[in-house]
Amino acid sequence: MSTPAPSANLMEAVVSLAKRRGFIFPSSEIYGGLNGFFDYGPLGVELKKNIRDCWWNDLVRRRDDIVGLESSIIMHPKVWEASGHVAGFSDPLVDCKVSKQRYRADQLFFAPVIVAQEDGVPVDLGFVCALESEDTSAELQKLAEELKRKKAARGKLEGIVPLSFETATPDQIPLIPSPATGEPGSLTPPRSFNMMFQTNVGAMTDASSVAYLRPETAQGMFVDFKTIVDTGRVKLPFGIAQIGKSFRNEITPRNFIFRSREFEQMEMEFFIHEDDDWAKWHRHWIDWCKDWLRSIGLPDTHLSEYDHPKAKLAFYSKGTTDIMFRYPFGVQELWGIAARGSYDLTQHANASGRPQEIFDEATKKKFVPHVIEPAVGVDRILLAVLCAGYAEEDVTDEKGNVEKRTVLRLSPRLAPVKVAVLPLLKNKEPLVARARALHAKLKRRHAVFYDDGGAIGRRYRRQDEIGTPWCVTIDFDTLEQPGDTFTLRERDSMQQRRVTEAELFALLEEQVF
Amino acid sequence: MSTPAPSANLMEAVVSLAKRRGFIFPSSEIYGGLNGFFDYGPLGVELKKNIRDCWWNDLVRRRDDIVGLESSIIMHPKVWEASGHVAGFSDPLVDCKVSKQRYRADQLFFAPVIVAQEDGVPVDLGFVCALESEDTSAELQKLAEELKRKKAARGKLEGIVPLSFETATPDQIPLIPSPATGEPGSLTPPRSFNMMFQTNVGAMTDASSVAYLRPETAQGMFVDFKTIVDTGRVKLPFGIAQIGKSFRNEITPRNFIFRSREFEQMEMEFFIHEDDDWAKWHRHWIDWCKDWLRSIGLPDTHLSEYDHPKAKLAFYSKGTTDIMFRYPFGVQELWGIAARGSYDLTQHANASGRPQEIFDEATKKKFVPHVIEPAVGVDRILLAVLCAGYAEEDVTDEKGNVEKRTVLRLSPRLAPVKVAVLPLLKNKEPLVARARALHAKLKRRHAVFYDDGGAIGRRYRRQDEIGTPWCVTIDFDTLEQPGDTFTLRERDSMQQRRVTEAELFALLEEQVF
Repeated sequence: MSTPAPSANLMEAVVSLAKRRGFIFPSSEIYGGLNGFFDYGPLGVELKKNIRDCWWNDLVRRRDDIVGLESSIIMHPKVWEASGHVAGFSDPLVDCKVSKQRYRADQLFFAPVIVAQEDGVPVDLGFVCALESEDTSAELQKLAEELKRKKAARGKLEGIVPLSFETATPDQIPLIPSPATGEPGSLTPPRSFNMMFQTNVGAMTDASSVAYLRPETAQGMFVDFKTIVDTGRVKLPFGIAQIGKSFRNEITPRNFIFRSREFEQMEMEFFIHEDDDWAKWHRHWIDWCKDWLRSIGLPDTHLSEYDHPKAKLAFYSKGTTDIMFRYPFGVQELWGIAARGSYDLTQHANASGRPQEIFDEATKKKFVPHVIEPAVGVDRILLAVLCAGYAEEDVTDEKGNVEKRTVLRLSPRLAPVKVAVLPLLKNKEPLVARARALHAKLKRRHAVFYDDGGAIGRRYRRQDEIGTPWCVTIDFDTLEQPGDTFTLRERDSMQQRRVTEAELFALLEEQVF
Repeated sequence: MSTPAPSANLMEAVVSLAKRRGFIFPSSEIYGGLNGFFDYGPLGVELKKNIRDCWWNDLVRRRDDIVGLESSIIMHPKVWEASGHVAGFSDPLVDCKVSKQRYRADQLFFAPVIVAQEDGVPVDLGFVCALESEDTSAELQKLAEELKRKKAARGKLEGIVPLSFETATPDQIPLIPSPATGEPGSLTPPRSFNMMFQTNVGAMTDASSVAYLRPETAQGMFVDFKTIVDTGRVKLPFGIAQIGKSFRNEITPRNFIFRSREFEQMEMEFFIHEDDDWAKWHRHWIDWCKDWLRSIGLPDTHLSEYDHPKAKLAFYSKGTTDIMFRYPFGVQELWGIAARGSYDLTQHANASGRPQEIFDEATKKKFVPHVIEPAVGVDRILLAVLCAGYAEEDVTDEKGNVEKRTVLRLSPRLAPVKVAVLPLLKNKEPLVARARALHAKLKRRHAVFYDDGGAIGRRYRRQDEIGTPWCVTIDFDTLEQPGDTFTLRERDSMQQRRVTEAELFALLEEQVF
């Protein structure tokens, strides 16, 4: 029955649905938008809140070993010196001095253009250069052919091998043309550009007042570690969890809400004894995260693990595993689970002069705990959920007509609307009264929606498209048959059955939280 | 029985409790803190989340006429030009050129010092100047006496009348001494200082990339108004609600979390027909807000209303009423309910060139809706709840000893922990097993805490101090008497009674949500 949308169009379909039904749209759209910033509309904000609440309830409230935190977005600038972000959180950027354009060096590719003449002697025509695209090689090939034409060179163009601008030598840089002008001589060598947004706090606007918008929530947990140990009743191993906005001045935000400049993180720092088995805890948290993703409805088929190669890890890192998700634009990082040793606490101890140690009653020695950090973005989860849940199906109605239905298969835990309450007819007072009463009772606990507009089939379709798991229709059987039952229509199977109010509440109780 | 803490010490007691039990502490404290920024610890974050959730559930989910929104913190800079914040959202600041200190002109007070000599001729000794304090007049009086001594003037000091520095004439300013140096000649005339935090978006750091951290969430509702009308199924009158962080570069943050630089707002824009009775809706929302404050436990005795005088309103404003709360440091604004006419939508229509109109089916005419805006800060509510709930009492134990108990009378809706589960003894396995089972069952739905450490009386006190409404003790009667009952101990009355598991769940169901 299901005809899954092909991946190439899936992203477009999801973005279109998100806009059409008020899930997500560009920030400040009436002013032309702001690249890398998004707003969540009435349904989007409910979906986002449900993701946050599920994570918080499962991790903080239902476990005994995790406590919560909300640290400020603007922190003391020394936090980011100690963490290494002031010195190291940067992208290599290349300026075009003529056009004033800026490029990320790792997204800029160049290639030498060489023509083999009939006598076999190769002639060097210079370089071509292009921004990374879906097919950078083809783009460079095209530019090379143009160059050959322009220079009226004869002979056979040799194969194009794209090289990252990061590898360009000082001799090559003046000869590589700018993608903006097509002429060489205007590109600068790559310079590092810090991705933290900078501002000034207080009345002065000078170096003394510089502060940053946090690029991650994690440092809050490290900086407040001792306060929480001293004021809470926590004992190792334990975690500190936080949900909140972070900001990164990405040069090229892309893939809708996947890589934006303002985003929301859910991070947790799990502190363990220095002698504890970090690999066991690392595995515990990888498994917990995967289980949790399944619990909110992401299919196993879309999930995989990627272990960062040892050679690429920071010196202090014991290991990092990413849970990957198959997005329409490729398999990408969803959740990183990093074993960071005692690096962060040690950095802050050194920078602040305040020891970040725990006293071990058994050995009577002090030590700096080690940490496992599962870090995930709310927006990335939300995008994964929309992409995995979106489907277009051909369905046949009672009259044998085939029509298309768009359905968003969201987990009942996440769906913005849990139940739509539908009186069969809007002009039959007893139907309306019973529907209103049910709606009023449901909304004390649940996000529900009352809809009396249009044919019942159309009302079902509207709910399918926004992922509502159940529709309840108040019909003549409700009034005329014994038992005060409603028609419960299930989104995915489209099957219908009769339920009582008590059965409906029990179903929600079981599946929603 | 209750001995309420005197107001003067109440603020100190609340700040101390907040720190001691991990509700709230200064941001980046290991680096000496950052003035005007705070972190919420394990209990604070639960309290804050409960405030947010109560507001969201009551306003958005339980009403049919309000939808939610989460717009980005960094918006297009034109939003703030159209809203008037770029030009007008500023404080008048005064520099001391010698000390490099900055002052808010409206917090700086000066007074002429005049001595009446014995012959009745008044002699002008110059001016004194001081920052606003709890008793500015007394402060100025002291300075005037010093000045008289210094100048060896005879006669009787005339009464001191504090004048705002904002009213100082160009002739007076060079003669007014700086509070930092005590000498005149270094203070500048007031200059306006914009309170928006500024940053740059993208690779360039120049005028073209300037952006601001939002100083309020409200503009998101105006800018997205048409998108929500076009994609949602909303009909006038309806509201758009948002919870989120806002930022104001206050020169003098003060009163703990009451006036900070990073804070969280809960704002709602309620759009009505241009011909609708705005005064009726204005009253509706004032009443709703007061009812809601009562529903989370704020006492009527601490609430009052303040109508802004007509003469002080902006030209477009129809009226603004503040719900005031009696904080320990004075009666202050908690919730502002403003009738803003069609000003904001009209401003954005003009600035963006996109009409912000609704089509009226009845009159077949287009019009710009009017708006009522209830705006409140989460942090201010949280502080009000702590201040109103804090009490120190003398209680008499079974042995007749009088001891002090600190109790936080939080509404069950807001309490970070709803129920503490306490096995009477930690080394009696059947007690522990029954307690563990109850705890596991409760925590699927509620924030609960398991505590087996120390005497039962001490455990009760620990829960009193963090506002836990109920403690449940699993004791020998639980095991030995029929009915599987526990001792339920109520925080405020300290009364105890026996309940079954079902009765406990019913109690929570009734009082918590």
